[in-house]
Amino acid sequence: MNAPFDTVIHGGTIVTAAESFRGDIALKDGRIAAIAESIAGGERRIDAGGRLVMPGGIEAHCHIAQESSSGVMSADDYYTGSVSAAFGGNSCFVPFAAQHRGQSIADVLATYDGRAAPNSVLDYSYHLIVSDPTPTVLHEELPRAFARGITSFKVFMTYDLMNVGDAGLLDILTVAKAHGALTMVHAENNDMVKWMNRRLADAGLTAPKYHAVSRPELAEEEAIHRAVSLAKLVDAPLFVVHVSTRGGAAIVARERDAGTRLFAETCPQYLAFTRADLDRPGMEGAKYICSPPLRDGETQAALWGHVARGTFDSVSSDHAPYRFDAGGKFLNGADAPYPKIANGMPGIAARLPYLFSEGVVAGRIDLQQFAALSAGNAARIFGLSSKGSLMPGHDADIAIWDPEERRVVTLEDQHDAMDYTPFDGMTLTGWPVTVLSRGAVVVHEGRLEAARGQGRFVARQPSGTGRMRGHRAPEFEALRAEGHEIAP
Amino acid sequence: MNAPFDTVIHGGTIVTAAESFRGDIALKDGRIAAIAESIAGGERRIDAGGRLVMPGGIEAHCHIAQESSSGVMSADDYYTGSVSAAFGGNSCFVPFAAQHRGQSIADVLATYDGRAAPNSVLDYSYHLIVSDPTPTVLHEELPRAFARGITSFKVFMTYDLMNVGDAGLLDILTVAKAHGALTMVHAENNDMVKWMNRRLADAGLTAPKYHAVSRPELAEEEAIHRAVSLAKLVDAPLFVVHVSTRGGAAIVARERDAGTRLFAETCPQYLAFTRADLDRPGMEGAKYICSPPLRDGETQAALWGHVARGTFDSVSSDHAPYRFDAGGKFLNGADAPYPKIANGMPGIAARLPYLFSEGVVAGRIDLQQFAALSAGNAARIFGLSSKGSLMPGHDADIAIWDPEERRVVTLEDQHDAMDYTPFDGMTLTGWPVTVLSRGAVVVHEGRLEAARGQGRFVARQPSGTGRMRGHRAPEFEALRAEGHEIAP
Amino acid sequence: MNAPFDTVIHGGTIVTAAESFRGDIALKDGRIAAIAESIAGGERRIDAGGRLVMPGGIEAHCHIAQESSSGVMSADDYYTGSVSAAFGGNSCFVPFAAQHRGQSIADVLATYDGRAAPNSVLDYSYHLIVSDPTPTVLHEELPRAFARGITSFKVFMTYDLMNVGDAGLLDILTVAKAHGALTMVHAENNDMVKWMNRRLADAGLTAPKYHAVSRPELAEEEAIHRAVSLAKLVDAPLFVVHVSTRGGAAIVARERDAGTRLFAETCPQYLAFTRADLDRPGMEGAKYICSPPLRDGETQAALWGHVARGTFDSVSSDHAPYRFDAGGKFLNGADAPYPKIANGMPGIAARLPYLFSEGVVAGRIDLQQFAALSAGNAARIFGLSSKGSLMPGHDADIAIWDPEERRVVTLEDQHDAMDYTPFDGMTLTGWPVTVLSRGAVVVHEGRLEAARGQGRFVARQPSGTGRMRGHRAPEFEALRAEGHEIAP
Amino acid sequence: MNAPFDTVIHGGTIVTAAESFRGDIALKDGRIAAIAESIAGGERRIDAGGRLVMPGGIEAHCHIAQESSSGVMSADDYYTGSVSAAFGGNSCFVPFAAQHRGQSIADVLATYDGRAAPNSVLDYSYHLIVSDPTPTVLHEELPRAFARGITSFKVFMTYDLMNVGDAGLLDILTVAKAHGALTMVHAENNDMVKWMNRRLADAGLTAPKYHAVSRPELAEEEAIHRAVSLAKLVDAPLFVVHVSTRGGAAIVARERDAGTRLFAETCPQYLAFTRADLDRPGMEGAKYICSPPLRDGETQAALWGHVARGTFDSVSSDHAPYRFDAGGKFLNGADAPYPKIANGMPGIAARLPYLFSEGVVAGRIDLQQFAALSAGNAARIFGLSSKGSLMPGHDADIAIWDPEERRVVTLEDQHDAMDYTPFDGMTLTGWPVTVLSRGAVVVHEGRLEAARGQGRFVARQPSGTGRMRGHRAPEFEALRAEGHEIAP
Repeated sequence: MNAPFDTVIHGGTIVTAAESFRGDIALKDGRIAAIAESIAGGERRIDAGGRLVMPGGIEAHCHIAQESSSGVMSADDYYTGSVSAAFGGNSCFVPFAAQHRGQSIADVLATYDGRAAPNSVLDYSYHLIVSDPTPTVLHEELPRAFARGITSFKVFMTYDLMNVGDAGLLDILTVAKAHGALTMVHAENNDMVKWMNRRLADAGLTAPKYHAVSRPELAEEEAIHRAVSLAKLVDAPLFVVHVSTRGGAAIVARERDAGTRLFAETCPQYLAFTRADLDRPGMEGAKYICSPPLRDGETQAALWGHVARGTFDSVSSDHAPYRFDAGGKFLNGADAPYPKIANGMPGIAARLPYLFSEGVVAGRIDLQQFAALSAGNAARIFGLSSKGSLMPGHDADIAIWDPEERRVVTLEDQHDAMDYTPFDGMTLTGWPVTVLSRGAVVVHEGRLEAARGQGRFVARQPSGTGRMRGHRAPEFEALRAEGHEIAP
Repeated sequence: MNAPFDTVIHGGTIVTAAESFRGDIALKDGRIAAIAESIAGGERRIDAGGRLVMPGGIEAHCHIAQESSSGVMSADDYYTGSVSAAFGGNSCFVPFAAQHRGQSIADVLATYDGRAAPNSVLDYSYHLIVSDPTPTVLHEELPRAFARGITSFKVFMTYDLMNVGDAGLLDILTVAKAHGALTMVHAENNDMVKWMNRRLADAGLTAPKYHAVSRPELAEEEAIHRAVSLAKLVDAPLFVVHVSTRGGAAIVARERDAGTRLFAETCPQYLAFTRADLDRPGMEGAKYICSPPLRDGETQAALWGHVARGTFDSVSSDHAPYRFDAGGKFLNGADAPYPKIANGMPGIAARLPYLFSEGVVAGRIDLQQFAALSAGNAARIFGLSSKGSLMPGHDADIAIWDPEERRVVTLEDQHDAMDYTPFDGMTLTGWPVTVLSRGAVVVHEGRLEAARGQGRFVARQPSGTGRMRGHRAPEFEALRAEGHEIAP
Repeated sequence: MNAPFDTVIHGGTIVTAAESFRGDIALKDGRIAAIAESIAGGERRIDAGGRLVMPGGIEAHCHIAQESSSGVMSADDYYTGSVSAAFGGNSCFVPFAAQHRGQSIADVLATYDGRAAPNSVLDYSYHLIVSDPTPTVLHEELPRAFARGITSFKVFMTYDLMNVGDAGLLDILTVAKAHGALTMVHAENNDMVKWMNRRLADAGLTAPKYHAVSRPELAEEEAIHRAVSLAKLVDAPLFVVHVSTRGGAAIVARERDAGTRLFAETCPQYLAFTRADLDRPGMEGAKYICSPPLRDGETQAALWGHVARGTFDSVSSDHAPYRFDAGGKFLNGADAPYPKIANGMPGIAARLPYLFSEGVVAGRIDLQQFAALSAGNAARIFGLSSKGSLMPGHDADIAIWDPEERRVVTLEDQHDAMDYTPFDGMTLTGWPVTVLSRGAVVVHEGRLEAARGQGRFVARQPSGTGRMRGHRAPEFEALRAEGHEIAP
Repeated sequence: MNAPFDTVIHGGTIVTAAESFRGDIALKDGRIAAIAESIAGGERRIDAGGRLVMPGGIEAHCHIAQESSSGVMSADDYYTGSVSAAFGGNSCFVPFAAQHRGQSIADVLATYDGRAAPNSVLDYSYHLIVSDPTPTVLHEELPRAFARGITSFKVFMTYDLMNVGDAGLLDILTVAKAHGALTMVHAENNDMVKWMNRRLADAGLTAPKYHAVSRPELAEEEAIHRAVSLAKLVDAPLFVVHVSTRGGAAIVARERDAGTRLFAETCPQYLAFTRADLDRPGMEGAKYICSPPLRDGETQAALWGHVARGTFDSVSSDHAPYRFDAGGKFLNGADAPYPKIANGMPGIAARLPYLFSEGVVAGRIDLQQFAALSAGNAARIFGLSSKGSLMPGHDADIAIWDPEERRVVTLEDQHDAMDYTPFDGMTLTGWPVTVLSRGAVVVHEGRLEAARGQGRFVARQPSGTGRMRGHRAPEFEALRAEGHEIAP
């Protein structure tokens, strides 16, 4: 077994996506080397003390060191962002590298490499946001990005400066499929939102709470259905980010059941808060402005049901850290109308403690589901093949959780660059105690042990779509029967 | 009973949307005056001879004296079109008056009045096609059209020159709802079709049969879902024309069951033909080019199921008469690629005999459903309140059918201006023998008795949406709870 | 038109299952002779005064002059029962003729003939309750009953003295189908109810409110599914009486949608009351003991939804009149445990005013649905081919309703032999003013005009199952393919 | 790690229900001791040679050394049965211990202990068949059986000598739930089957193929719905054995999705054969007589879909070995009518190779599903907590599979006491090479290495129902709200 080991975690209950059992776990050269009932030795021995030894979290939806399309820079850079993620139980994260119109993908990636490499304490990759699918981008730059291990592309169906339209989405899906990349989509109907914005502005209804009105549930439901239809046409896999509605989740569930190669996530904010939070006194509601917006209590219950039944592959934070000041939310003034307030909520450190407490401790999901939702599924779907598992041979990305620790969420806890957390004051049970990334202890009992820049870029594999069968459009089948193939 | 009567139809079985019974029917001043077991008198006595006395058909989807957006004029004008309709068992029809971009609605209506009034042998109205929803059109011209009894507006989600986009559709739905008008929609995803056209052209696949490939089932299904979502947002009634897919019909069925104010039709061509017909030898397949395109046998069976279960309110012809020559289908040459061949099939005379034979005689629907699908539902939905019923007080629009006559369809039979009928050679059982419009005999035993121009424009009432409850979007409910109303 | 007429009803709005229109209606020799915009003459002219002229109600589920299996005689005989029905807007009714074990069907029918013929003021037929399906009953007596026009047989799946078991139900379905008769079923799982009764008794829980606990929703849902399965096996039509649960109604809806030849009703009590009424002070709750029992508010809403969407063919009273005294409810003592209290509620006079007020006036159904639910569907399904319609040739069974009359329900109103009505004190809008049966005025403006015994037994036709396709079990299909037929 | 190890399996791909990875596995004292990338040492080293190292199969539905209710003894005893199971990739099996009416449970268990202990080469437990739920059995004997680790009870809804009726099923469900035991059910409507038998006998249709006709799909579908309803009433977990129909599987899927604590299996014979096999020449069809019977090709496809989507927890053999001779199938004569031919098919050795080949190799399921369907789910559901997993601490029940071996099934292969196998001649890809039970090699490269009687009885834990929520009947909720509890 190639002992001596670098590190042995002993005395814990090991939790995988399939089962839980008592055992020790040994690490060597940054990887899991062995699992056994009892393992002696190890240069460093970590006593799990009966706690849970789980795969380190993978945060697959967060905005780090990223300018919004309206020019606001996120408060967190790759240092504070990765530190906050680690304190929240994560061993790896995948922020976005965002193309603005006119930019080359090479420039985008060079920029983000410069931001990430010197700073991140966790291993990382990027999802590449594509807002300008020119022929050059489609046929030269995306393949090049894919070749260096960036195997997921995200597109927007809303926001005038980002929306690629149905034609753009079809083109990107086609290119992505041809290379084995996964297309991710922010699905809201742009015209519905603009129509609502215009009507609300005409009626003088611009307080933060009208943000929730301006982006109707039907806008999300419609766009999800449309995105799925486009993906089904060319049988390309699709990942729908931040599903916030009953209707949207129902479409995802139905299509997955039919074998469509479709993945989806929801976020803690849609489970924890409602549109009533947008109506907090003064401008406090602005803290809860995110898109898609918060919904109602019945939606929360329905989304939890979908989490429990497996409609969602992951629960991600959509960490979008804009401070509650003029450099963040209020770039356009302290009393700006809702469409001029920066959009997004922080949550990279709170995601997993919230999911553990309200999911596992509250009895809605079990530990196996937690392991899958927090890490295992993201690893498989986004091609992080060395991550998300505790089995020998995988990167030693591990989080030790105390399932009984009960603590109130504070801003300080978050270890990020923000001046508020929407989870402030919430009492949660179950917290990460120790987090390792590629074998190195990053956080241990509340202290940061990692060095700035120790995280590495992870070249990802093609998306693993698992056992889904896909969709065979009859038109392409007809062509194939004739020997013609016009799609990837 | 205000006898003496003008006309008495005696000795028939009267068929309504609710029941069938033996009885006589008396007409006076163009209206139904009485129904009784036996009625004496009448200036003219028509012996129904045990045949079926039914409401005259209402053809609610046909293109008459209309230029396509690419400039081809339909072969039928209001004379040949109305004569053909009458021979097919119809007492009334509602062609389109089509706005081309830049045209004022007033001009459009004046043009169509000039085409219809001097020529039609049947009562008529127009559905107004809106392709250019400028503020003037929306807020001044549509209300004016509505005021003169044109209470349905049709929009396209496809064809670059017609597509109004999601924003335009929302605006039209809003205006329509405010006045009690009904919005009709041709639902196909424009970008999907264009993407397919480009790919097929690149591959050199341009024979007529590729027309069916170029407009995928998913394009219709997606667009129906989107149109319904937009209509639900503002709770406006919607009518989906020519549903051709299983997926589209399933959406309609599900939404109707949920109370959405949604109406729909299919057409005989989707029940009678398949994409295999597009692959007939030479350019014969061009006769079967229509949009949405023909599908497959399983789709036929499913659509018949939906006809039987009431998913569809009507079965309309979508009569779009382009001759099989250089003035029609082949304006762009006898061997034009499919995108350059005029789009549409004739069928105004064949619609009801086909529906009777394959529906009633084949046991798929009963006589009551036939009465509703051929006339009663269209009367209610399109606000033709004096039509579609045999009860006293209504216009005497009556068709006498011989349910046992068995005849082969011929081109001559159609009495239109076309040089082909796709139904050619089909043997059907059950044919109209006599047709009256507002009390006047139009067709009797194969002879035309009507004078050119005797039909009148019918000012329609607002759409009758019946017992549907509509959809209450939570966002508007939230506003209403605060006392705000930003939608119609 | 064979004038002069006996009676002309003029100045009303005529309501059929398909439409409403202004018109007069003329009667001759007990039948509808003519409908016209205006009819002169008539020996008697009844001024409808703008009110609604509708088909007279058909009460298809009521217990009249019937002993329960435990020996309690219903309070109403054929005189009080028919009078009460007439005051409630009915022109015809179909009580039960109940076989007790060991009885011959001939004896049963002779007994009921003796009770009905001298007394009924309305036309009537019987549903024949079969509790003892011996070979003689099945193969000799049921065919004889059918031959004299008794074309519906009812069976129980509960009550030890009535339950025919799955084998008995299969046999009766088979015989019924062979003759064109319809099988009706009271569907509750007997073992579940007995198990609950035993457990509740052991726990000393015997107050009236525990009646609702003792007959669980699952008992009904299960038995409906089972009865439908048995009927599907032999493709025999089935009518499920008094559906009281969401689960049961959902099964009915799903099966009807699939084409199964299945009919169903619910009753006003399941729409108007809940199990909370069983917990009224003292023994008042006993007034609300009926089987299946009352449920909850969500069930009410769901059942109304099914009424609106057409899951139910009729809304019947299940009038089971046991007085609130020792001769009725309390045969076994004033403080008997719930299983010893007579089971049933009166409602023959309240059914239609309740359905009109809470259905039509409250906007849940329209007038056409009311006409179908109150009379038209029952006529068709139970083979009362001369009833249920206002079209010429049918029996002149007519009810004139004042849709605006607003009145509080009183016991006196019911004109029955009972000492309570559960509807007491409810304010309803819309009441019948005049009721005719076969052309004779029975009730007019609150006065009874009919003579005891003027009603006639109506020989019924086979059940009309309409457009349903039935179910083809693969096993029988396999046999048929071999040329074998072992079922009816 | 407590080396030295007894056995090390090296060089394989380890397959768990969650993932696959390269690694070695070390055993000590009959248990899994360690998993690591590479493990040295071991008294015995088994070279997996790149093959798959999987949890040993658990056969949870088989009839071994059991008399049928008509008195035929199964051909396999615990020696041949366990040997055959081991050659088929199983490390453990759970046959039935069957109570006949009048027998005490203690006697039943003593009898089976005598048959199993001296003979079995594999670890084993029993499911206890209850056919006579007297109060003594329910309240004294079943708890005693449970106490010694027999935590699943099976009941029949069919066969006159076994059927416990709805009341019996309710009683058993209640007792089982009270102790944490799981109720298993053979669900077919007894009256339907008897009705069919009578009709077929009357028509002289008694060849083997009519067996399939005699047990209609509706009989299974109905009984599954009924059993689930009874279980839902008392919120007791239920396991439906050998689901063979589309309708039945759909009920299971729907209920599981709704959170009902419901488990189910299907069997290879329903995936591999059809009713056409019952029509093989001569009496060959008798080889395919089992209950429920084989269905058709569409059913096969639908059942595979349910296997893939997770409707079924396991695929079990229902091994019921009756030889094709007078001591087995033909106890009542070589040309007995189908109801007199012994019912059942062998398949304990063929189950897993068939599932691997047609499931994994054919691409319908992946390796993780295979691990769950063949072993992991049965371990969890039936309380075999030391089995079904490869993680440290569990029993070393392991099967090494060669996924590429391609072989024709022969009777010899089966290593059972039968004279036929229905899978004869089928070519399958993927076969077990080595099987260990509690660390001991039982089969290795085609040779038996185990000693008669080395298997041990396994005392089982209560059923683990996982994350299902159960069903809360409103009636019990109402009682609970009052503080009453009348059910377990």
